[in-house]
Amino acid sequence: MSTSTNLLRIKASRMSSMKSSTEINSNEGRINTSDDSNGSDCHETSTKRRGSKNIVWHKCSVEKVDRQDLLHQKGCVIWITGLSGSGKSTLACALTRALHSRGKLTYVLDGDNVRHGLNSDLTFNPEDRVENIRRIGEVAKLFSDAGIICIASVISPYRKDRDACRSILQDGDFIEVYMDMPLHVCEARDPKGLYRLARAGKIKGSFTGVDDPYEPPLNSEIIIQMEGEVCSPPEVMADKVISYLDAKGYLQA
Amino acid sequence: MSTSTNLLRIKASRMSSMKSSTEINSNEGRINTSDDSNGSDCHETSTKRRGSKNIVWHKCSVEKVDRQDLLHQKGCVIWITGLSGSGKSTLACALTRALHSRGKLTYVLDGDNVRHGLNSDLTFNPEDRVENIRRIGEVAKLFSDAGIICIASVISPYRKDRDACRSILQDGDFIEVYMDMPLHVCEARDPKGLYRLARAGKIKGSFTGVDDPYEPPLNSEIIIQMEGEVCSPPEVMADKVISYLDAKGYLQA
Repeated sequence: MSTSTNLLRIKASRMSSMKSSTEINSNEGRINTSDDSNGSDCHETSTKRRGSKNIVWHKCSVEKVDRQDLLHQKGCVIWITGLSGSGKSTLACALTRALHSRGKLTYVLDGDNVRHGLNSDLTFNPEDRVENIRRIGEVAKLFSDAGIICIASVISPYRKDRDACRSILQDGDFIEVYMDMPLHVCEARDPKGLYRLARAGKIKGSFTGVDDPYEPPLNSEIIIQMEGEVCSPPEVMADKVISYLDAKGYLQA
Repeated sequence: MSTSTNLLRIKASRMSSMKSSTEINSNEGRINTSDDSNGSDCHETSTKRRGSKNIVWHKCSVEKVDRQDLLHQKGCVIWITGLSGSGKSTLACALTRALHSRGKLTYVLDGDNVRHGLNSDLTFNPEDRVENIRRIGEVAKLFSDAGIICIASVISPYRKDRDACRSILQDGDFIEVYMDMPLHVCEARDPKGLYRLARAGKIKGSFTGVDDPYEPPLNSEIIIQMEGEVCSPPEVMADKVISYLDAKGYLQA
């Protein structure tokens, strides 16, 4: 922290003497202009990452670990995947309630809700569905970095897309919860009437479980299943996730 | 809260009896399939928003007000705008430090950092720059909804784009901070050497302040200016923002 503190004490008038770490694209002798560049005296590190050449990474003096200390918890992503009607939002709600009642800060990223804002430009064609998942994964990562227990509730039918979201997080911080409910159960519930519409050919594009596959996770951290013919109450499902978080140390800083 | 609690107590086995509120697109008799739909028993409201027809809004039982109570603060967006080299990141860092030291949860969305992840698919062409700002605004809104004091640090040269970000937030929750530094000062600092490159024609596309305009805010909540020839230290700039937050009640729930 002392380095950061010292950096912060550098007078604004001295900023002009700071070296630039923006890299020049040697292929063209031109650089991508940063539309967000600025005279940061907190500028400590510069990294170069795939897909975003010549953009400087600003490291701030308040880090994830500091926010976690403040919140008495560890930031992570609980990624709830499963068929439509499998109970993802049910679990997400029960989980956010149970954690909140323990004084933990959570945030639910619901695929449908994000479609209203951040992803409102996306259609339901295959490319846009991939992009929908990618963006939710990236936002979940930001929330996790903020120290929050981020609960993402998205069908996310393809293993590849889910694994891509896992890959951008620190080991352990992506906790996949698979709602392993039989299709016939989900279809009997059909809370939004979507299966009925899909079977009647009234859905634009394909529908997971009907004419598009759902690829079950191979190594999810948590599996939620029926016990015989009975679905566990939401609180019981939430407890299973909370026990996992507790055991892995996410409920303390 | 009692309604939510009751809803949560609905057994999973009863979910199939819940009514669907998904809307059918009457123009085509087909609906957009929700790729994130699920059997939520927390499903309380349904709204229809521009650009995302037929998608159900899931309202969760833990709301912004609950998270704010937990954090003893109010979620909002501090949008720092100004030329490259005007000190946006400097202020963002000083602000996040000062607020953190008061026990407040903040998160800095730096335009450059977001380019590494969420916006790594975007170029620097005019359309993508608009989209870059739009997405940062949407993510900032989510952070604000999480109860966090979100500090966005982005040149965001166009009034229209900034106002679009303001418009998606509740009144008062978008706090625009204008780094009103003369171009010659920013250019003299040139912390990343970008002005030098721009003047030499070595920047791909246009560069704000050199060959692309910066449109100053007309009604920003806070203006940071030099005092004569002197720039205030970052802590003093941060104090100005904190005084505003305090006066407006954002530092308590």
